[in-house]
Amino acid sequence: MDTFIAPQQLVSNLKWRYATKKFDPTRKIPSPIWEALEDSLVLAPSSFGLQPWHFFVIEDVDLRQQLLPHSFNQTQVVEASHLVVFAIKINLDTDYADRYLQRMAEVQGVPLEKLAGFGNMLKGFIENPPFDLEVWATKQTYIALGQFMTAAAMLGVDTCPMEGFIPAKYDEILQLPQRGYRSVVLCVAGYRAADDKNALRPKVRFAKPDVVTYLP
Amino acid sequence: MDTFIAPQQLVSNLKWRYATKKFDPTRKIPSPIWEALEDSLVLAPSSFGLQPWHFFVIEDVDLRQQLLPHSFNQTQVVEASHLVVFAIKINLDTDYADRYLQRMAEVQGVPLEKLAGFGNMLKGFIENPPFDLEVWATKQTYIALGQFMTAAAMLGVDTCPMEGFIPAKYDEILQLPQRGYRSVVLCVAGYRAADDKNALRPKVRFAKPDVVTYLP
Repeated sequence: MDTFIAPQQLVSNLKWRYATKKFDPTRKIPSPIWEALEDSLVLAPSSFGLQPWHFFVIEDVDLRQQLLPHSFNQTQVVEASHLVVFAIKINLDTDYADRYLQRMAEVQGVPLEKLAGFGNMLKGFIENPPFDLEVWATKQTYIALGQFMTAAAMLGVDTCPMEGFIPAKYDEILQLPQRGYRSVVLCVAGYRAADDKNALRPKVRFAKPDVVTYLP
Repeated sequence: MDTFIAPQQLVSNLKWRYATKKFDPTRKIPSPIWEALEDSLVLAPSSFGLQPWHFFVIEDVDLRQQLLPHSFNQTQVVEASHLVVFAIKINLDTDYADRYLQRMAEVQGVPLEKLAGFGNMLKGFIENPPFDLEVWATKQTYIALGQFMTAAAMLGVDTCPMEGFIPAKYDEILQLPQRGYRSVVLCVAGYRAADDKNALRPKVRFAKPDVVTYLP
């Protein structure tokens, strides 16, 4: 039986969330909670279901210290429990589509031949994309980022999304291009420090009518 | 007192979610649930908190019929309870930053002068962006899309994200540029039809080690 949550709980958790700048470095995310957050990454929706991404997770403090100067010295990179580097697949090609089709055949228990129609459409898109494929992959990755932060808020885990870092340096230190990826955005997760002043500042959002319009 | 959910509930709800192609056209999302979903849009995180977006919500079936041919005739555009058009602010300029700073002063109860440092940084970014501002705004909007779909899954509401539409036609019909925006992605929300075959197909995700790597 599927169970869902009450609307007021959702809203209360989303209001609880904020971009945490100061984490309690002594608090690690317990395994069962981290595993659910990892699942939120794996289960994130993407166009065609293609998952043109990879998530690099760093708990090691020494490695994070190395990344700190390339993160505008934002200490949450080191002090949070987990650092997630969201990366996109580079040189996305029909081989990647084939891997996905194979996986689909396996998971859904259907012969690969039955997926030919979908496969041809997917490969046509990859071979003649109507827009830059890396920009497209990056946008998909931001869906995963959104899902991850929302999931964390539901579980009482603090996060801070970060575009303020030098992707080329991250790629170099973590050897991402050699693995077939490049970094596009970061998110740290953990628990707010008791004295993080940002926790007390009211969340600033435009008034509803300034961002939501009902048409016609 | 903040309350959070159990990790297994999160994962169960995320697994329940899928890209719903066939909705039950007779089922509308009840107001208290829709209001929470609207809040999930308004509360979505964005870089600098700038919210370079607008969400156009369409319940009217006639208007959605007009959009259908520009959505590759995907009937969920008409049959779902709500259609959300995610749009970005065009010509993002320092005036927009000023509106945001004004809102910040108002919400946080601080004099505008105290925000000058942050304001100058923000305006410097807008005046000399290190990348295309519309691409950047689109990525932020995909965070909101991710948060919206995750929120819906928590509430038992089905969704389908859609990149398959003609943004120029949507913009024209909905007169978005005149309002200062352009459409970048869609998401419909409602309730799956009892006979939607996609609901029964197992979710296809790469195996964890193919998308998550722990470093070093």
